[in-house]
Amino acid sequence: MSVNPHTYKGAFVFPVRVYFEDTDAGGIVYYANYLKYMERARTELSPHVGICHSETFNEGKGFFVVRDINVKYLQPAYLDDLIDVHTHISAMGRVRIEMEQVIRRGEVILAQGHVNLVNVNQERKPAPMDPEFMRLMGDYLKEK
Amino acid sequence: MSVNPHTYKGAFVFPVRVYFEDTDAGGIVYYANYLKYMERARTELSPHVGICHSETFNEGKGFFVVRDINVKYLQPAYLDDLIDVHTHISAMGRVRIEMEQVIRRGEVILAQGHVNLVNVNQERKPAPMDPEFMRLMGDYLKEK
Amino acid sequence: MSVNPHTYKGAFVFPVRVYFEDTDAGGIVYYANYLKYMERARTELSPHVGICHSETFNEGKGFFVVRDINVKYLQPAYLDDLIDVHTHISAMGRVRIEMEQVIRRGEVILAQGHVNLVNVNQERKPAPMDPEFMRLMGDYLKEK
Amino acid sequence: MSVNPHTYKGAFVFPVRVYFEDTDAGGIVYYANYLKYMERARTELSPHVGICHSETFNEGKGFFVVRDINVKYLQPAYLDDLIDVHTHISAMGRVRIEMEQVIRRGEVILAQGHVNLVNVNQERKPAPMDPEFMRLMGDYLKEK
Repeated sequence: MSVNPHTYKGAFVFPVRVYFEDTDAGGIVYYANYLKYMERARTELSPHVGICHSETFNEGKGFFVVRDINVKYLQPAYLDDLIDVHTHISAMGRVRIEMEQVIRRGEVILAQGHVNLVNVNQERKPAPMDPEFMRLMGDYLKEK
Repeated sequence: MSVNPHTYKGAFVFPVRVYFEDTDAGGIVYYANYLKYMERARTELSPHVGICHSETFNEGKGFFVVRDINVKYLQPAYLDDLIDVHTHISAMGRVRIEMEQVIRRGEVILAQGHVNLVNVNQERKPAPMDPEFMRLMGDYLKEK
Repeated sequence: MSVNPHTYKGAFVFPVRVYFEDTDAGGIVYYANYLKYMERARTELSPHVGICHSETFNEGKGFFVVRDINVKYLQPAYLDDLIDVHTHISAMGRVRIEMEQVIRRGEVILAQGHVNLVNVNQERKPAPMDPEFMRLMGDYLKEK
Repeated sequence: MSVNPHTYKGAFVFPVRVYFEDTDAGGIVYYANYLKYMERARTELSPHVGICHSETFNEGKGFFVVRDINVKYLQPAYLDDLIDVHTHISAMGRVRIEMEQVIRRGEVILAQGHVNLVNVNQERKPAPMDPEFMRLMGDYLKEK
């Protein structure tokens, strides 16, 4: 099992280690922290396909905000687990991206997330994505 | 505006202050942190209706886990904002509770959450809720 | 015991409830989260003495950054605990403030913090504090 | 620059990426989150020298708690930064370990931490460390 980000069956796979900070008194990963894992994976997806995230953010080309999110919690994750976030782009328009993000420990599915992202400008208004971003993301989706 | 938890139009209203810890480099509350606010409100709902949360947790009577959650993000919350989590119980069975949780700043709706909770025993298997819990929660729902 | 912020024996007392989000798999409050509690208390100290925090932050009058912090962990805090952060100002200069922050559960001291804060301008360079801030803070210290 | 944990000049070097979750409305890493980075590095130090952390935790052989911590904040870290936590063991007794943890971005020192850890048993009382742990950690310190 690789501990580095990679592509597997059309998904971007981002490994995450569970630390004490992630767990709660129930002995498992606190439910809000899956959203952190999912956001880390989305952030790493961009450089993985050749896009520099912070450049985009700083140059004022716009950025993505989460419009809505759905997470189903199936199995808990525990301290020290090495888990993977599998991210698929399920739909892409000019201003929005829809992603499926599945969190797994080996073959076991722990959580299933569905995220709608909207590209916004510096005033947080929906705006068309950077064409270069769309081209690189599109190439990644085709070649997978 | 009251800064203490109270009941308003049939919802349990729990006020939250936005601190630096809650915000991100975008200048707004980080999207996962709304789930913390919602969990705080759900936690405070129990003592508000006369149920001692930690007793339940420690006495092994079972506890609630989030089965799935949906959050729509409508408007951002900012540093120092005083916001409210409005929690409605929309459905209640023997093992599960369904809640609507709306986060507002004054009259403005910032986020809308829908949460499914399942009562589980110490082995994390679905189990009927404590009857006393159901009775107190039912009384609260009726009187509102 | 009051659950609202108040002044007691010359300290600003800020009550904090321990939620699931604060705990870890060891069943206690995660050690970094004491720094969140301490920062919440420092943030609430300003409005308590009549200073509007976000105004200061937004108007570019400068803000405080933590230069260094020391925390001694004496006793753990548990889920659902109602604890207090007692904040004393131990020294104040033109650009810096030194605070003692003690976290207690009733009479039991859980943690002792010592924090050095520096007032900085928008370029994050040390700068004299707002005179109005110093006056109000000084008045609070004298009257206690 | 390696993005995998490694040993460099006698220190265990653990790389960390700064994500949105780590930053605050000031545009920089929130001060408490450095303690998360430091704890991640301490956690990864054990498997790096051949010790299985969760086994130790689960088998009831005892575990480490932070007795006190000091952090000096010198330079801020920003979104998307790739930073390193350099961990040195500065002293080791039968029940306690003292560590220096320096957080750097390339050659720039961002924060300097000093941590005292105590090994405790299941009742959270100080207890001698597992001899195998001490041997493996001692070997690592000698060979570096």
